[in-house]
Amino acid sequence: MSGPKPGFSRRAFFGGAVASAAAGAAIGVTATGLSEQAANAQAGGQGSAAGTSTAAGETYPFYGEHQAGIQTPPQDHLVFMVFDVTTTSATELQVMLAKWSAAIAQYTQGLAVGTVEPERELAVPGDTGEAAGMGANQLTVTVGFAPSMFDGRFGWAKYKPAVLNDLPAFASDALTPEFTGGDICVQACASDPQVAYHAIRNLARMARTTATTRWTVQGFGRASRSADQATPRNLMGFKDGTRNIVGDDEFAQQVWVGADSDQQWMTGGTYLVARKIHMLIETWDTDYIGDQHAVFGRTKMEGAPLSGAAEFDTPDFAATGADGKSVIPANSHVALAAHENNGGTKILRRGYNFTDGIDSVGRLDAGLMFISFQHDPAQFIALQQKLGSMDRLNEYIRHVGSGVFAVPPGLAAAGDYYGKALFA
Amino acid sequence: MSGPKPGFSRRAFFGGAVASAAAGAAIGVTATGLSEQAANAQAGGQGSAAGTSTAAGETYPFYGEHQAGIQTPPQDHLVFMVFDVTTTSATELQVMLAKWSAAIAQYTQGLAVGTVEPERELAVPGDTGEAAGMGANQLTVTVGFAPSMFDGRFGWAKYKPAVLNDLPAFASDALTPEFTGGDICVQACASDPQVAYHAIRNLARMARTTATTRWTVQGFGRASRSADQATPRNLMGFKDGTRNIVGDDEFAQQVWVGADSDQQWMTGGTYLVARKIHMLIETWDTDYIGDQHAVFGRTKMEGAPLSGAAEFDTPDFAATGADGKSVIPANSHVALAAHENNGGTKILRRGYNFTDGIDSVGRLDAGLMFISFQHDPAQFIALQQKLGSMDRLNEYIRHVGSGVFAVPPGLAAAGDYYGKALFA
Repeated sequence: MSGPKPGFSRRAFFGGAVASAAAGAAIGVTATGLSEQAANAQAGGQGSAAGTSTAAGETYPFYGEHQAGIQTPPQDHLVFMVFDVTTTSATELQVMLAKWSAAIAQYTQGLAVGTVEPERELAVPGDTGEAAGMGANQLTVTVGFAPSMFDGRFGWAKYKPAVLNDLPAFASDALTPEFTGGDICVQACASDPQVAYHAIRNLARMARTTATTRWTVQGFGRASRSADQATPRNLMGFKDGTRNIVGDDEFAQQVWVGADSDQQWMTGGTYLVARKIHMLIETWDTDYIGDQHAVFGRTKMEGAPLSGAAEFDTPDFAATGADGKSVIPANSHVALAAHENNGGTKILRRGYNFTDGIDSVGRLDAGLMFISFQHDPAQFIALQQKLGSMDRLNEYIRHVGSGVFAVPPGLAAAGDYYGKALFA
Repeated sequence: MSGPKPGFSRRAFFGGAVASAAAGAAIGVTATGLSEQAANAQAGGQGSAAGTSTAAGETYPFYGEHQAGIQTPPQDHLVFMVFDVTTTSATELQVMLAKWSAAIAQYTQGLAVGTVEPERELAVPGDTGEAAGMGANQLTVTVGFAPSMFDGRFGWAKYKPAVLNDLPAFASDALTPEFTGGDICVQACASDPQVAYHAIRNLARMARTTATTRWTVQGFGRASRSADQATPRNLMGFKDGTRNIVGDDEFAQQVWVGADSDQQWMTGGTYLVARKIHMLIETWDTDYIGDQHAVFGRTKMEGAPLSGAAEFDTPDFAATGADGKSVIPANSHVALAAHENNGGTKILRRGYNFTDGIDSVGRLDAGLMFISFQHDPAQFIALQQKLGSMDRLNEYIRHVGSGVFAVPPGLAAAGDYYGKALFA
C-alpha cells in the first residue's frame, strides 16, 4: 500500500493505516473485505475495473489530527451530500455516526463494509457493489455538522461553537431551497467518480431511518490546487486556485481551529463553507476578452495578474497605466479577494466544476461548487460581503446553494467516531 | 502523437491524423492551436492541468470509414447531448454541420477552434477555454440524425432510410419529455469529463441561431467493455457488458450498415439507440441476493452465468437444477437478451452510469445511460419488446428517456462533413 504523499500537516499522527473492525463491530457493523478483488486492488493497485486512472490502488491515511479531504491534494472528482437528521433520538444519531466513522475508515482504505454477495440466498447485500474491485482511488470522506445540529435536539446545544451560525444573507444571493439547509454534510473526493458515489450511497443507506438525503452536487475538474498541482480551470475558462493556501504554516494560521477555541472538541477541526455557484455560461461566452480580463483581474491563458506577466507573479494593486487608472481594476475578483486587501485573510478553496445538464429554459446549467475551509466562518463572510456587493463577476454568476458546517478534527484510532465528544 | 490502438476495423483508412483547417476556413471557422500549452499536451502528453488521467495526450484518429466513439474502446466519461434544429434553412444547417465537422476534427486531436485569448481587447474568445492545455484525453465525438430530420424541412425526405423511424412504445416505458425527442445527437466520450464537456459546449455555442440544446446526460463508469477492457459495473453492482460485441467480424455483421442499404449514404454508418434508464436504487438495495441473481441470471461478484462458474462461461439456458427448474430463469435479463434466444441478434452496448442527484421525493436519482449501436434499429426493438414485457429487471428500472439516430459513416478527409451527401 504505497499511497501518495498524504495531505496531513507535519504534526499529524496516524493511528493505523487500515481500520480495524472494532468500532464497527461494537455497534453491529460487520467489516469484511470485498473478497479477493478488493484485496488485490489494495495490495497491488491492480487497476480499476471501470477506470483508467493511475490511482486505482492509492490510499490516504484515515486516522490523524485532521480529517482527510482538506489538506489532501484535491482529487479529480467530488460527490457532496447534505443530510437531514430525521431521528430525534441522540442514541440513534450516535449509532449512525459511529457506523459512518467505521465505514469511512474502511472505504478510504479500499475495503468494504458488509459483503456484496452474501452466501445465504435470502440475505440482503451489505454493500451495493458498484465499486467492487476498484480500489480506494485516493478516496477521502470529510464530515461536517451544520448549526442546526446544535439546536437542542440531541443535547449538543452546550457544545455549539460561538462562530458557527447560519451564514448571513449576502448581496446578490439567489439561493434556492433545493440546494440549501440540512444538518450534516459529507464530502467524498476520489480519482474516480464511481468510488466517491459508492461511499456516499452506502453511507446514505446505513443512515436510513435516521437521516435522509437533502441535497447533493457532483463535481469534476478540481477547480483548486495544492502545492504540487498545476492550476486547473473553471468553466469560465480561467485558472482557479493560483493563490490558494498551500503551506503548513498557512494551514495552521488560516484553516485549522487552534487550542484557543471556545469549544475544545473543535481543536484540529475547521469550518466548511459550501456555495453552489451557477454560471451564466452563454452570457459569459459572449463577453469580449478585455472585459473578461478586467472581471478577473488576470489574463485568461497564462492566468497572470494584469500587473504582471506570469501566473504566480504577485499582483501589484497600486500599479497604474498610462491613463492613470489601476492596471488591476479595484472591483475585479482578484483585487477584492486578495489577502493584501483583506487584512491578511485567506481561505482554503477546494471547489469543483459541475454541470447539471440544461435548465428549464434550455440554457446550459453549469458552474462551480465552491467549497472553502477556514478556522472561522467570519473569514468567508468578510470576503463574500465584499464580493457579493462589488465583484464584477456577479454579472455572470448566481449563488444558488449554501451551507456552513463545523468539521471536527480527525479520528484518533478505531473506536473513535465523529461527534463522540458531543455525546459526553 | 502515439495514440492508443484505434477502434476502427481492419478495413479502416485514415485521411490524416490531424485535421487541416480547410473545411473550416471555407465557411469561416478559424482553426488555430491553443498556443503552446495544447501543443505540448499534443506532442508529449504533458499531462492534464486538471486531471490525473494517464491519457491526457492520447488521441484517436478522426478520419476513417466509420465514426469514432463506436468501436473505440469506451472511454471513462460521456457527455450526450441532443439538439433541436431551429432554423428552417437548409443552408444554415449545412453551414452548422460543416463547422461542427471541422471543429470535431480539431478537438479530437487536442487542437482548438478559435483562440481562448484573442489579441484585440474587444474580440470575443473563439474558444471557451476550460480545456486549454488539457490535451485530447482520448476524445471522440459521434454525430447522429433523428427521424425528424427527414420530415422535409431540409430536403432530406428522399434520403430517409426505411429502417429509421421513431421507436415504438414499449411495455413499461415511462418516458418523460425532458429526455426525449430532438433532431441531432452528439456523443462526446473522453478520459476526462471536462474535455468532453468542452467539446459539446463549444459545438452548442457554434450552433446558436441554428440549433438549441434539448436534453443531455453526463455519464461515468463506462458500463460496457471492448475486447481489451475489464468488465465494469453498473449502479446495481453487477458487471455490465460481459457478452458485448468485441470482434471486427461481429461489428461487420451486427453494427455497420452494409452496401446493401436502401440509402447509400449510410454505408459504413450505424444506428444509435439512447435510453435513459432510471434505477430504483433504494428498492434494489433492499432486495436479497438470491433474487438479484435471478433477476440478472448471473452472480454478482464474478458475473458468472448461474449455470457456470466464471464470467465468460457460455450460459447454458437448458441446464436444470435438482428441482427440475431452469438454473438460469427464463425471465432473467441474460436469458431474455442472449443472442442464442434471439435468432443470433446482438447489439453493441456502449452505455454509462449516471447520477442526477436527488429526485423530488428525496431518493437518489441514478441509473444507466444505455447507448447501443446496431445496423438496424429493429435489432434493439426486438430485444426491448421482450425485455419491456418480461424482464424481471423491470421491477427496479424505468426507461425515462429515449431516442434513435442514424449515425453516418466517418468523414473521408478535410472538406467532408456530416450530412454532406444529403444536401446533394
